[in-house]
Amino acid sequence: MAPARVPTPRPGDPRLARLSLNQITVRQWGVAEAVAGCARAGIPAIGLWRGPVAESGTAAAARLVRDAGLRVSSYCRGGFLTGPDRAAALDDNRRALDEAAELGAPCLVMVVGGLPEGDRDLAGARERVVEGIAELAPYAAERGVCLALEALHPMFCADRAVLSTLGQAVDIAERFPVGQVGVVVDAYHVWWDPQVHAAIARAGARIASFQACDWILPLPADALLGRGMVGDGHADVAGLHDSVLAAGYTGDVEVEIFNADVWSADPDAVLATLARRHVEYLA
Amino acid sequence: MAPARVPTPRPGDPRLARLSLNQITVRQWGVAEAVAGCARAGIPAIGLWRGPVAESGTAAAARLVRDAGLRVSSYCRGGFLTGPDRAAALDDNRRALDEAAELGAPCLVMVVGGLPEGDRDLAGARERVVEGIAELAPYAAERGVCLALEALHPMFCADRAVLSTLGQAVDIAERFPVGQVGVVVDAYHVWWDPQVHAAIARAGARIASFQACDWILPLPADALLGRGMVGDGHADVAGLHDSVLAAGYTGDVEVEIFNADVWSADPDAVLATLARRHVEYLA
Repeated sequence: MAPARVPTPRPGDPRLARLSLNQITVRQWGVAEAVAGCARAGIPAIGLWRGPVAESGTAAAARLVRDAGLRVSSYCRGGFLTGPDRAAALDDNRRALDEAAELGAPCLVMVVGGLPEGDRDLAGARERVVEGIAELAPYAAERGVCLALEALHPMFCADRAVLSTLGQAVDIAERFPVGQVGVVVDAYHVWWDPQVHAAIARAGARIASFQACDWILPLPADALLGRGMVGDGHADVAGLHDSVLAAGYTGDVEVEIFNADVWSADPDAVLATLARRHVEYLA
Repeated sequence: MAPARVPTPRPGDPRLARLSLNQITVRQWGVAEAVAGCARAGIPAIGLWRGPVAESGTAAAARLVRDAGLRVSSYCRGGFLTGPDRAAALDDNRRALDEAAELGAPCLVMVVGGLPEGDRDLAGARERVVEGIAELAPYAAERGVCLALEALHPMFCADRAVLSTLGQAVDIAERFPVGQVGVVVDAYHVWWDPQVHAAIARAGARIASFQACDWILPLPADALLGRGMVGDGHADVAGLHDSVLAAGYTGDVEVEIFNADVWSADPDAVLATLARRHVEYLA
């Protein structure tokens, strides 16, 4: 990790006003610890995950966040709409939407699912995603939660998400009312795309979430864990951030890092680093 | 690897008429062994690599191929045009074009290069690729060798090739005369792309090479080595092949597999498998 080039901002620093911690970044912590850590670091928002929320209980997690004066920037995650058991997947997504509403999350991040075992019908899987979103959109609207379609890096197309570009996510979102279905712009997943800035401009009010982390080299043995702190890699996160602002996005910058080194570090130090990087590159 | 479902085709089988072995698939072998292996297996074409060709000597390699009655389908590889030492890169590409001409290769596969250390200017790197191709195109034309731009999977954008989609490669190729600059359609690199079939149709006569291999799971620890035999993974190689044929491509189907298991297998058995898979899925 590059050395600190700016002082750690103090709680209340206005440059932190739009920073959010996605709690996977401090996977060692449960909801209570993450919320307390955000409060100590002056990070005003948090992206929650279903696993730790289930451990706390949804109502308790909602109370922890509210009592600390934080807001929830997103809820991770729904999706997985491409498998054979469609009814079970839809039920699970409805539960996730209920939880998101109870937590006050504006959006449910949708990782749409990959190709079933032995399946090569990518167009068919992509069509099932559209059908699943169509089934869920009215339910999401009733709960006031936006379905935020996340294009994942194409290296996850087979096993995690057949949505591979932001443009493709926008194409689907546009079939539904604004506010019901939107998109996530995750720098790690989309930075390489020659059409990403055009897709961001087209997304406009559809941008439900902006997630920040960097593409670092070498690729790790576990491809899921190759994400770095903003500024440590090759993704022009600041350029993507400029584009989402130009497209009218006024929401949070959520830092989501899957990385074994980050997970083994002191979580308070991780929060201090991401606050510094936010100030240095994005605020 | 899936069990054999068709008998191994015999030399002279007309279904092998368009099959080519990219020699990296049998990395254990030098040019002489690979050429002899192709002759035994009835594979009429070979894609050569600079390293083994240099070990044989270019003239000797050309003679080996000619004497065995094979044709050369491609020469791997040129490119790496994004680094700081532009003059050295261009010189090296000119040498590669000389070798390709001497070998009778119709095209030089161009892996264009990634981002230099610490660099986040992806648009700038992409512009340097265009400039480099513009410098090399007349030299390639004089030698009768097509510069074949290869879009690599976006997971290699930072370290190997800032050309990340076939559409992007076609956009660049179209600035030059047909025959001077073309594109490679490599199933492994482009199968995930929602716009790939449209890009293939647009490429038309620009398609200089079609490379076949499959996307297998799980991703291996070394991301370079995750390629499988056609039929073992999730890429719809047959669908891509249909599209290149519909676009007018009449060249070879070159099987290029980077895979530690394939490299540790008996090379003659590897050739038999790829001939069977070619018959089963593509011929």
